[in-house]
Amino acid sequence: MKIRIGIIGLGTVGSGVLDLLELHRDFFTRDLGFDFEVTALCSRSQARLDRFAAKAPFLTNKPLDLVSRPDVDVVLELAGGEEQPRAWVEAAFAAGKHVITANKALLAKHGKDLFPLAEKTGRFLLFEAAVGGGIPIIRTLQEAFIANDIHGLACIINGTCNYILSEMTQKKVSFASALKNAQELGYAEADPSFDIEGTDSAHKVALLASLCYGKYVDFASMTVEGITSISDVDISMAEEMGFAIKLLGIVSQDREGNIQANVYPALLEKKHQLATVDGVLNAVFLKTSAVGPILLTGAGAGMLPTASSVISDLVSLARQLATGNPKAQPMSFFSTRNRADLIPIDELETEFYLRLTAVDKPGVLAKVTSILGEEGISIRALVQKPEHDPEHVPVIFLTHSTRNSNVSKALRRIDALDIIQAPTQVLRFYK
Amino acid sequence: MKIRIGIIGLGTVGSGVLDLLELHRDFFTRDLGFDFEVTALCSRSQARLDRFAAKAPFLTNKPLDLVSRPDVDVVLELAGGEEQPRAWVEAAFAAGKHVITANKALLAKHGKDLFPLAEKTGRFLLFEAAVGGGIPIIRTLQEAFIANDIHGLACIINGTCNYILSEMTQKKVSFASALKNAQELGYAEADPSFDIEGTDSAHKVALLASLCYGKYVDFASMTVEGITSISDVDISMAEEMGFAIKLLGIVSQDREGNIQANVYPALLEKKHQLATVDGVLNAVFLKTSAVGPILLTGAGAGMLPTASSVISDLVSLARQLATGNPKAQPMSFFSTRNRADLIPIDELETEFYLRLTAVDKPGVLAKVTSILGEEGISIRALVQKPEHDPEHVPVIFLTHSTRNSNVSKALRRIDALDIIQAPTQVLRFYK
Repeated sequence: MKIRIGIIGLGTVGSGVLDLLELHRDFFTRDLGFDFEVTALCSRSQARLDRFAAKAPFLTNKPLDLVSRPDVDVVLELAGGEEQPRAWVEAAFAAGKHVITANKALLAKHGKDLFPLAEKTGRFLLFEAAVGGGIPIIRTLQEAFIANDIHGLACIINGTCNYILSEMTQKKVSFASALKNAQELGYAEADPSFDIEGTDSAHKVALLASLCYGKYVDFASMTVEGITSISDVDISMAEEMGFAIKLLGIVSQDREGNIQANVYPALLEKKHQLATVDGVLNAVFLKTSAVGPILLTGAGAGMLPTASSVISDLVSLARQLATGNPKAQPMSFFSTRNRADLIPIDELETEFYLRLTAVDKPGVLAKVTSILGEEGISIRALVQKPEHDPEHVPVIFLTHSTRNSNVSKALRRIDALDIIQAPTQVLRFYK
Repeated sequence: MKIRIGIIGLGTVGSGVLDLLELHRDFFTRDLGFDFEVTALCSRSQARLDRFAAKAPFLTNKPLDLVSRPDVDVVLELAGGEEQPRAWVEAAFAAGKHVITANKALLAKHGKDLFPLAEKTGRFLLFEAAVGGGIPIIRTLQEAFIANDIHGLACIINGTCNYILSEMTQKKVSFASALKNAQELGYAEADPSFDIEGTDSAHKVALLASLCYGKYVDFASMTVEGITSISDVDISMAEEMGFAIKLLGIVSQDREGNIQANVYPALLEKKHQLATVDGVLNAVFLKTSAVGPILLTGAGAGMLPTASSVISDLVSLARQLATGNPKAQPMSFFSTRNRADLIPIDELETEFYLRLTAVDKPGVLAKVTSILGEEGISIRALVQKPEHDPEHVPVIFLTHSTRNSNVSKALRRIDALDIIQAPTQVLRFYK
């Protein structure tokens, strides 16, 4: 069976897809019976079109020309962006094409319209590559754990941030230095804000949360904190106390069906499976009702890992098309009509790490502990480490489990004290 | 769409399937559109039939009566055994039924006939539950990594053995004591030989190897060593040197396409991802060409994890049946016509751990090292630990990478020396 493919975007993922299609052509044709023919390529870069000119008969720099071509059955949207790809995908569906995308920003922002549209037009919109690169998390949630409730999910889903935090931990370097190193290695963009402020993680976590609970989780409703505030003092204090700091996407549902979905740097015990996931690796940890805890770890980005997931979607689609009456996974729950009301972060209950920067005067601890007590926060541990900075001795409080709102209230009062020299660093624990 | 189910076997997995079907009935019907109706149950135990009598209109203790019933679309073979289930599955195909099984022994032994038969009769034979319990390793290999060559696979795939080795490591107990503990907790059978001798692992590894390389890997051709020879001395010596001992299934393919597939206890560095997989957990570590290293960890057995995988197969099957023209995954490569010639273990090159039990006399080391040298084995480290046993001082040699046959030859000579008091313990490293 012949499947004709149009590819929009000839960057790393697009060229990886072309490579893998060529590398496995014999296997796909002979063993699977699918002849994947690339009929059209689109890039805004003429240099790339020239470079890949031999790979397809039709080349264009106009995505809308590609998606409407009669010799295209499936469009691979591998370009990135949000508004333009939305128009391309809509046009592709209107022209009867199926779509495979690696674009998490597109789906996080416009999935609420695109998934229902796919269902309405009877087309597939597949996106294994959009979350976790080569890790098969989408099909695991959609298929493998179909008979499980997902009690909770925690994931390391942005390789840039995980690389930076790992470097800070292993090499005792500052955030700025680790970031610079990541940029030099190509693990971080020149403008890294999209990654380090947690936005990219939030896009992916919103998709995962939606799949876990069959509701539309709007990333704009999530609390998203990046890693820019994490200092080497936090890293080393956490490490001394037996914890790693990771940027986590954390999703859960309580017994009443209320959903939490947030992204923030969290302390977790070093022996936790997620704590040992270092460098650019991604990981998804699931607490499932029937299977129990499950961890998937692997490359979360990169040319071939992401391309591998695109092609796994392509083969899934081909297998469905081969039946003559393809049935897409039901994804129409992903719509504004089915929006999840997220529990505000204020209602989160967890343990906290508070790092105060205080003047070294008697009575500081008394004032701070009395405020914490008045706000109902009970202290689990207190550590002062003058060796980190004799001028501004960091004082670390670890709290017992308490509501986020209690901590916010306490810190508004504490940070207003004249003995406090800088805003208190607040990090949450993950268990 | 209604799917009518007959279940053979009402043990833990069978009852787990009935539980999950009931628990998620609304979701399956309303959200997926599948009405899974259990029409027939079979158990050789009348007590179980009585217990589940309300769950299905037809009850029998004769599997062949169940598989031929017109009101059964799919047979869940959850009974265990090898020869009898083979006959049931053949009869099921002959009667036009699809089959889902959790029976790795059946597939390892008779898959070479049953997979081709499934293809010939146009029926599905699904088996996610047969390997790794709730870990979605079958669909990951079949679907997610379809555009990857699998350079290698290492897995902890028998929870009983992993529990015993973990207990020996963490609690410093003997093999016998850890086994007894496992039996008391229900993690090991009264007759544990099937697990602890590696047979169960071999069945699963043969299936995984077959899927990795699209050939029929016969478990009878594999080298299979269990954990019965592992002593607390081995565990503690390995630990002191920075290694964990795990029963691993190890599969690889070299550049010429030759396959190795074996099961043996191996030393691996404590920082390796597999080294931290403890207790009854299972894990599969894959080295893939496009995605790179990937780890999947979770519950490898148990009522609900295994039942969860059975139901994931059931939903996959239903999604195919819904198209009206179902297409099974091509599995006909799994036949004697396509048998893999496995590389004999003698040709394996790796590092070795040798524990000699020698009399405490001068000249012992000279004799042993000279034999090792003559057989081309170079020594990486030598450790003597009198504190373990002053009477029979264990002497540990760690070798550089060498062929397994060299080590076998050397040990035949060494163990024949009169200064050697017991057969030398040989363990391989995994990197």
